[in-house]
Amino acid sequence: MIITSLENEKIKKLLKLQKKKYRDLEDMYYVEGFHLVEEAYKAGVLLEVFQVDEEVFFDVSTTLVSDGIMKKLATTDTPTNIIGVCRKRHYDKIEGNHILLLDEIQDPGNLGTIIRSAVAFGVDMILLSENTVDLYNSKVLRATQGLYCHIPIMNVVAKESILSLKKNGYVICGTDVLKGKDLYTIDKSDLTKYCLIMGNEGNGVRTEIKNMCDVNFYIPMKNLVESLNVGVACSILLYELGR
Amino acid sequence: MIITSLENEKIKKLLKLQKKKYRDLEDMYYVEGFHLVEEAYKAGVLLEVFQVDEEVFFDVSTTLVSDGIMKKLATTDTPTNIIGVCRKRHYDKIEGNHILLLDEIQDPGNLGTIIRSAVAFGVDMILLSENTVDLYNSKVLRATQGLYCHIPIMNVVAKESILSLKKNGYVICGTDVLKGKDLYTIDKSDLTKYCLIMGNEGNGVRTEIKNMCDVNFYIPMKNLVESLNVGVACSILLYELGR
Repeated sequence: MIITSLENEKIKKLLKLQKKKYRDLEDMYYVEGFHLVEEAYKAGVLLEVFQVDEEVFFDVSTTLVSDGIMKKLATTDTPTNIIGVCRKRHYDKIEGNHILLLDEIQDPGNLGTIIRSAVAFGVDMILLSENTVDLYNSKVLRATQGLYCHIPIMNVVAKESILSLKKNGYVICGTDVLKGKDLYTIDKSDLTKYCLIMGNEGNGVRTEIKNMCDVNFYIPMKNLVESLNVGVACSILLYELGR
Repeated sequence: MIITSLENEKIKKLLKLQKKKYRDLEDMYYVEGFHLVEEAYKAGVLLEVFQVDEEVFFDVSTTLVSDGIMKKLATTDTPTNIIGVCRKRHYDKIEGNHILLLDEIQDPGNLGTIIRSAVAFGVDMILLSENTVDLYNSKVLRATQGLYCHIPIMNVVAKESILSLKKNGYVICGTDVLKGKDLYTIDKSDLTKYCLIMGNEGNGVRTEIKNMCDVNFYIPMKNLVESLNVGVACSILLYELGR
């Protein structure tokens, strides 16, 4: 059997998952393309797949759909052949010594890029503050290239988490172009347990959060540009902290 | 007088500049929003502006247009109040000791991000290979936040430029995840004159270009991710080369 109608209940339910509201309600999301589906499968979060080809790739419930349906499910201009429905993962505790807290990051591409860099440079856990773009937004998932499956990511209330991290001996690190410490010369021996905070693209870290930082860094530049892209700045900081 | 018709010859000409073909033909492009227009003005490339408000901001030819026209000229969902028509700048010679060559970069956001980082970390000139996304694409210009005005950028045939750079004593630097030198430990004394090459998002640097490199770097990672975002990788390399 192959589904060809948008009126099919399964398809109607799937399409709803394009909205955050329904992703939250159903505790599910979907990914597009073989690579992302495979990563979800390896991570044990793949529930079922919808695909155009008959060949079965994953031992989960597999439903055939027409090209037309796939086109409607696709969130890109170039639809893929396979879509994977996944369950969200949940974490209730901060674990690890190297924590990254993202405060109100808005651009899906930036969040995806940062997740890739966080995995590469050995961050143990990512915390997303209130008002950060949804991790399960299709653009974010695509930009992570599946690496979101390789790191625990938790939604938090920023202020509460920072207070708890402080109590547990984490050094809270922010950035400050004017008064921060030169990143080329920082002493990393004090930073065995840290939480690095990166802020919103336009406004940076909120003042009330900034005020909670124990130390601020500054990325030395030859020419003072107003700011680097937040994904770039975050990645350079993680690269240096990982040295 | 205020232009309200899309049939107006000036507006028809402007709209054509949304296409690379016409930007090349006219040797012009346009930028949107006060910040980008101001940067173009400071750089001496602003030819004329089209705006919604009556107040004159720049001493160039200023034409009033209706909100409707501005909406049609806008390449974003949220139209700005001002558009600036600019002349392209041209360079015929590679100058400076720190050169960045981008080989077939496709994503406008990545090119914009890289330009910002290149200015920040003291690159003297950026070379764009054949098949690189057009610098004057509106998404690229927006992503540079106007910093494209602060650095010479030249379109080149990659292979020819590299040969010429080699003859002039530049060390040609590439990246190689498998056989590259660990970026944490490189000796920068040999790198007073260099050209760093960064490649396409999907395929990396073309093999024939890669083979011309004198040295290859590798960004050390805690977890081997398939690749970092090219804007991130390029920025980390420039950050480290600028140390």
